[in-house]
Amino acid sequence: MRIRNLKNKEAILDNCAFLIKNPEKHCGKWQGVFGNSHPIHIEIGMGKGLFITEMAKQNPQINFIGIEKYDSIIARAIEKVTEDIPNLRYLRMDAINIDQVFNQEIEVIYLNFSDPWPKKKQAKRRLASKSFLEKYDQIFKNVKQIKLKTDNDLLFASSLVSLSDYGYKFIEVSLDLHNSDIFNIMTEYELKFASQGAKIKYLVAYYK
Amino acid sequence: MRIRNLKNKEAILDNCAFLIKNPEKHCGKWQGVFGNSHPIHIEIGMGKGLFITEMAKQNPQINFIGIEKYDSIIARAIEKVTEDIPNLRYLRMDAINIDQVFNQEIEVIYLNFSDPWPKKKQAKRRLASKSFLEKYDQIFKNVKQIKLKTDNDLLFASSLVSLSDYGYKFIEVSLDLHNSDIFNIMTEYELKFASQGAKIKYLVAYYK
Repeated sequence: MRIRNLKNKEAILDNCAFLIKNPEKHCGKWQGVFGNSHPIHIEIGMGKGLFITEMAKQNPQINFIGIEKYDSIIARAIEKVTEDIPNLRYLRMDAINIDQVFNQEIEVIYLNFSDPWPKKKQAKRRLASKSFLEKYDQIFKNVKQIKLKTDNDLLFASSLVSLSDYGYKFIEVSLDLHNSDIFNIMTEYELKFASQGAKIKYLVAYYK
Repeated sequence: MRIRNLKNKEAILDNCAFLIKNPEKHCGKWQGVFGNSHPIHIEIGMGKGLFITEMAKQNPQINFIGIEKYDSIIARAIEKVTEDIPNLRYLRMDAINIDQVFNQEIEVIYLNFSDPWPKKKQAKRRLASKSFLEKYDQIFKNVKQIKLKTDNDLLFASSLVSLSDYGYKFIEVSLDLHNSDIFNIMTEYELKFASQGAKIKYLVAYYK
C-alpha cells in the first residue's frame, strides 16, 4: 500500500481509546482487555481496517484485533471507525514482534493482501513463511487456523507450499473467491481489485 | 476431450506392440515388461500422448506408461508414435481399475488436464479425490508423488484440499506454470490453452 503521510496522525493515535498502546504488557491476558472470554481473532496488516471493522460488527461474539505497522495507515483506519465497536481493538506494531504481544490466546489469524515480497531473498518476510509460522505457534491457543487471501499468484503459491511443509492442511481453497459461494467481507484493496476483474485467491489452513 | 470416432481403431490397437493388452496380468511385475529396473512413471488420462512420449524420449532412464480410457483417443495416440521408444508403453483402461493393474511399483503419477467433474456429486470421480488416492496407495512404491496440472480453477482447488486432507504435502505450486521457471512439457490440450492465454496451474504433491 502506498503510504501517504498524515499530518495529524500523532494526535489521532494519542486520542484513540481502542488503539492499545504498549501491547506487550497485555501478553497472555488479552481477554482481560475485552472483559470477556470470547475467542480472539487477529488481522495482521489490516490497512485501513474495512475488513476487521466489518467482521467485528457482524460477529459480536468474537473479539477482533487489527494490526498495522504504519502510523499514517492506522490513523486513517482509526478515523473510519465512527461508532463504538466494543469487540474491536487496534495495535500499531510490526508483525515480527507478534510473539511478544500474544501468548497462546489467538484462534484465527487473517492475512489479507499481505506484501508479496516477490524476490526469493525476501521470502522469509512473507507472512506465511516458516519464520512467521514459528511465531504464530506461540500465539495460537489450541487449533491453529490461518485464513489468507490475495490477488498475488506467487504469494499464494508460496504460502501453499510453506504452510503445507509446516504441517498445515487446507480446509478450503478457492482460486476465484468472488465467484465462489464462500462468505467474504472485502478489504479496501480487494474492492479496488475486484472492480478490475482480478481473481482473488483464498485459503483456510488449519493445524491441530 | 471431444471423442471423434476412428473407423480403423480396432486394427490400430490390435497391431500396436507397445499397447499392453490384459495389463492386469503384469500386476506387480511391470519392470519385467520393460526388462530393466528403472523407475516407472504413469500418466492417467494421456489423451493423444504428446506429454508422455516427449517425457519418455527426454528421460530414457525412466519407464513411462500412458493410460487412456477411450479406444478412439488411444488409437490416435498410437498413430502419433512413429519411432521406437523402448521406455514407453500404453494401456487402454479405466483409471478406476488402476489398483488391479499395478502393485507397489509406481514412483510418479501425472494427472494432466483431467476431467474436472465440476458438480459436487461428481467429486469422487476427480482423479485426486480420496477414493482415487486410496487406490494410488496400492500402486505407489515408497514415496508417493503426484504431479498435477490443469487450467481448471475448481479442479485445482479441490485437488489441493483433497491431497492435503489425505496427508500429502506440496513441494511445488504454481498458478501460472508457463510464466514460471519450472520445467514443463506440454500436452496437446495445454498447447491450445496456452495459445489462448489461459493460466495453467501446477502442483507437485508428495507423501512419505
